[in-house]
Amino acid sequence: MVKVTFMPQKITAHYPPGTKISAAAEAAGLPLDLVCGGRGRCGKCTVLVEEEGREAREVLACQEELTAHASVHIPARLLKKDAVILTGGTLGRVRLDPVLKKVFLPAAKLKEYESDGDFERLKLALEIHGLTPPSLQALRSLSARLRSRRGATAVIFQDTLASLEEGDTTGDFYGLAVDIGTTTVAAYLYDLSTGSQVSVASALNRQNTVGADVMSRIDAAMTEEGLSRLHGLIMETLEGVLQEAAGEAGISPGQVYLVTLVGNSTMQHLFCRLSPYYLGRSPFTSTILHKLTLPAAELPLSLNPAGYVVFLPLIGGFVGADTTGVLLASKVRNSKKLRMVIDIGTNGEIVLGNRDRLLACSTAAGPALEGAGITFGMRGTDGAIEDLYIASDEVFLKIIGRQKAAGICGSGLVACLAEMLRVGMVKPNGRLLSREEFLAAGGSPKLASSLEEVEEQRVFRLTSAGKGIYISQGDIRAVQLAKGAISTGVNILMEELDISGDDVAEILLAGAFGNYIDVGKGQAMGLIPDLPRVPVRPVGNAAGAGAQKALLSRESLREADRITAAVRHVELAGHPKFQDRFIAALSFPDKEPS
Amino acid sequence: MVKVTFMPQKITAHYPPGTKISAAAEAAGLPLDLVCGGRGRCGKCTVLVEEEGREAREVLACQEELTAHASVHIPARLLKKDAVILTGGTLGRVRLDPVLKKVFLPAAKLKEYESDGDFERLKLALEIHGLTPPSLQALRSLSARLRSRRGATAVIFQDTLASLEEGDTTGDFYGLAVDIGTTTVAAYLYDLSTGSQVSVASALNRQNTVGADVMSRIDAAMTEEGLSRLHGLIMETLEGVLQEAAGEAGISPGQVYLVTLVGNSTMQHLFCRLSPYYLGRSPFTSTILHKLTLPAAELPLSLNPAGYVVFLPLIGGFVGADTTGVLLASKVRNSKKLRMVIDIGTNGEIVLGNRDRLLACSTAAGPALEGAGITFGMRGTDGAIEDLYIASDEVFLKIIGRQKAAGICGSGLVACLAEMLRVGMVKPNGRLLSREEFLAAGGSPKLASSLEEVEEQRVFRLTSAGKGIYISQGDIRAVQLAKGAISTGVNILMEELDISGDDVAEILLAGAFGNYIDVGKGQAMGLIPDLPRVPVRPVGNAAGAGAQKALLSRESLREADRITAAVRHVELAGHPKFQDRFIAALSFPDKEPS
Repeated sequence: MVKVTFMPQKITAHYPPGTKISAAAEAAGLPLDLVCGGRGRCGKCTVLVEEEGREAREVLACQEELTAHASVHIPARLLKKDAVILTGGTLGRVRLDPVLKKVFLPAAKLKEYESDGDFERLKLALEIHGLTPPSLQALRSLSARLRSRRGATAVIFQDTLASLEEGDTTGDFYGLAVDIGTTTVAAYLYDLSTGSQVSVASALNRQNTVGADVMSRIDAAMTEEGLSRLHGLIMETLEGVLQEAAGEAGISPGQVYLVTLVGNSTMQHLFCRLSPYYLGRSPFTSTILHKLTLPAAELPLSLNPAGYVVFLPLIGGFVGADTTGVLLASKVRNSKKLRMVIDIGTNGEIVLGNRDRLLACSTAAGPALEGAGITFGMRGTDGAIEDLYIASDEVFLKIIGRQKAAGICGSGLVACLAEMLRVGMVKPNGRLLSREEFLAAGGSPKLASSLEEVEEQRVFRLTSAGKGIYISQGDIRAVQLAKGAISTGVNILMEELDISGDDVAEILLAGAFGNYIDVGKGQAMGLIPDLPRVPVRPVGNAAGAGAQKALLSRESLREADRITAAVRHVELAGHPKFQDRFIAALSFPDKEPS
Repeated sequence: MVKVTFMPQKITAHYPPGTKISAAAEAAGLPLDLVCGGRGRCGKCTVLVEEEGREAREVLACQEELTAHASVHIPARLLKKDAVILTGGTLGRVRLDPVLKKVFLPAAKLKEYESDGDFERLKLALEIHGLTPPSLQALRSLSARLRSRRGATAVIFQDTLASLEEGDTTGDFYGLAVDIGTTTVAAYLYDLSTGSQVSVASALNRQNTVGADVMSRIDAAMTEEGLSRLHGLIMETLEGVLQEAAGEAGISPGQVYLVTLVGNSTMQHLFCRLSPYYLGRSPFTSTILHKLTLPAAELPLSLNPAGYVVFLPLIGGFVGADTTGVLLASKVRNSKKLRMVIDIGTNGEIVLGNRDRLLACSTAAGPALEGAGITFGMRGTDGAIEDLYIASDEVFLKIIGRQKAAGICGSGLVACLAEMLRVGMVKPNGRLLSREEFLAAGGSPKLASSLEEVEEQRVFRLTSAGKGIYISQGDIRAVQLAKGAISTGVNILMEELDISGDDVAEILLAGAFGNYIDVGKGQAMGLIPDLPRVPVRPVGNAAGAGAQKALLSRESLREADRITAAVRHVELAGHPKFQDRFIAALSFPDKEPS
């Protein structure tokens, strides 16, 4: 065996003498893009080989055989394309191999093949034996396009010919990964010919106007009209992010051929205009968990009509395709050690497990941490208080965009609660002290002066007295309920696996929220589990990252099916310990003010 | 091993001791219909066993194990249903197992299965692991139907759930096999729950109004409007035979879930509204040869919208799915001996071969033998002269319905030509003698008096002088061209296989025409090959029988794909010997009048 080190990747492996460099590189996970198919004709796969005791020399990787220990320098441009999924936590690379492909066939190549049938001729030229025919619509233009002097580009979805386009259109090939959140819809546009992200767009889910959380959406969808309206609203929202993402990238939405979608179970039902009636009552049954593949032509979106839309599979109950996406993006399923993923959103999802056992649950956190239903709540945009610190007699605010405070976003709320607990202004049971009580407990008069009553509710003013932004007792209750919901899920999953905090190797915080929150403060007010010696790592929009992986790689799409088969869904609402654990989890951590 | 003979089928085989009788019967090709699934509960699979040296006794086939040599008597009602395809030539039995199925699930059974997803619950109940989801449309009613107290019936096409119907609808399950001929469309309606044929309908192809043969249809389809018109006309024709067949059977067309179609290449293009532009010019390329599967909802036919329509695969050039059907129905492909199939229609198809080699060609016979383009031509209905005999001084006619002659159909034309040749009234080169020439050649004055001139054309009157029915020189030329086309195909296929008449074991005459023709007269005028000692057997509408087999059996549908892969298509128009062979084949056989 000869020992070979590939540079600059620093991958070392051993091969039988006589192994071609290209084959060795492929085996080392560095597949080369061999333009002439490895026949030594194009001369493009030149690499630099340094064998022990010899001068470095340039050779063709597809021709040269390894005969002695060597290091091989592979120029980056030679490597088959990878795509990098960009999120706050950079969830990693994925091999570019989307489930929908474009293959250009030059006119000269098409002429090499003969058959009594044009579709059959195309099948020969594509060398896809099991290719299934397209729709009649696409068949109707096939014969003429196959005879174009400019050649033709086959659009292939799985093993189906989606369409045949005239000329070389392989450059017009974009895909969109979408995370349909209850409150926010995020869309990631990729150039599928290169694997690079070209734009990102996000918007409020327009269904928000009907109801803030999934239960109110389900209620509104009880009638056929309500269901149609909610379906229409999500389609409008999707058309909006599609237009925005395409516009920003300078392309037309008609150049988008593939869309992968994640979202919770309710979002999946409403997207498909499936009644969520049975999802809304015990035992919380979805119409279908299976991955849904829809021809783009059947949807009211400005996609390429030959394209496809794939909604990733659900896990069960309210644990939807968003969690499938989280699992696809994170390494929990391949991990030996136990890991926990917490995706904080209107619907919070928690996953706990490793490669052997995997549990998931969904918990109704409500929209408070997305700024909804909070007196001065807002999304994390300019003007939002995103963090704060309560000094002995003053409150320091951190405002997005360094401008006048316009409201408070989720991370600000968490920080606010943590600080109010720390200074003793809020009791562990969630009660906000009156000005008098706070003074009696030793609070500073300056801080105490910010404790007021507004419309028969106790409030704590964050900005200048009189008018301005405050946190009310009601706001605190909303955050408390969200915290309680998440903690209950965490606790029940740990009980189900019969593990303690010591057994967890890492906590991953998924969702945009996880990126902005101060983890220490989140732990101080009990939203994030405070397990000794367990690191907490924000990984960004992992659900969206999963949708992106599924967009870029058909293998990831297949993995999504395997994930849903591997995860056991724990139904919290029907869990015998749920009510007890929920009431216990409503309390904030009881620590002495530091 | 124990030796078992199944009675009354007289099938003997050997099994390891301990084999259950039901398993042994299945292995012997006698699958039993086990109502309770072989669990010994329903008591319905009682068979009579006679073991050597023991009394005969009744046992449950699903429970009893074979321990000694025995004969087993299986009541016919226990056998899984077969279907018999009815044609003139009774082309045989086929195991009832259509590609589209209905499975009833009682409410109690559905309740046994639990899942977070209704589609997944249905999949468990159906025990079809790879079941793929239906359209969104069908998904939308799935959850409610799954909860019906009356149970639900799953409609399954291949591995796709086509729809879920409320209650037990397994009795509402019909299928239609259609042979789209250039001139005639024949439809066979089956009850797919029992495999029995319930009605037959036929109609003239309404495309006839545009042109009589495939080339004139192709010409008319050159424009988008023409193509749409021809497509519309075949859809109207199909809707007509669907309504007629359903009406006769006393069902609604909406109870028809599966349609299988055969037809020549041009018919397939026009059915699908695919331009036959490239089919109409050398090298005669179809848009697609592959079997086409279309959701019924996409077609303007009153079928059940959850149903499917399958157009069988084409072979190549003008050899279409009708020939695939002929091969599916006949045993040529499994035969050791060489067999020839001749399907006489406006487009004639000829197949020659055996299990090792199989050739097919298509030949433009024109519509003469279907009565079109002949002065007094008509279809083989009441009033048509279907046979005739020319005595020394009189013409005897056989008229369908024993009424006044209204015209002459294809078999009558063949008989007429054979007789006119026999009495020397027509020369082998096709020239009709004048009255004087016929008298000079020794013809009787009475017969000679029927030879006249009408509108500057020689004619032979078949019915009372003055007015009435005659055959003209032009009619004779049309029949001569049809005969020449068929003979050329036969001769070129035999040359391609390098065989002589002695090598052919049997000639099968497919098509309605083959059932009515007098074979001896057909051979006398040269339409049917007159090979010494080779029997000629009419097999009825074999193309239609193939469509029926494909309707009743998914295995036959698969076999259709294998057939098209196995057959070599011989393109006559491009064949180097075609012109020479065609001119030679135009002559009628040169025999002395008997």
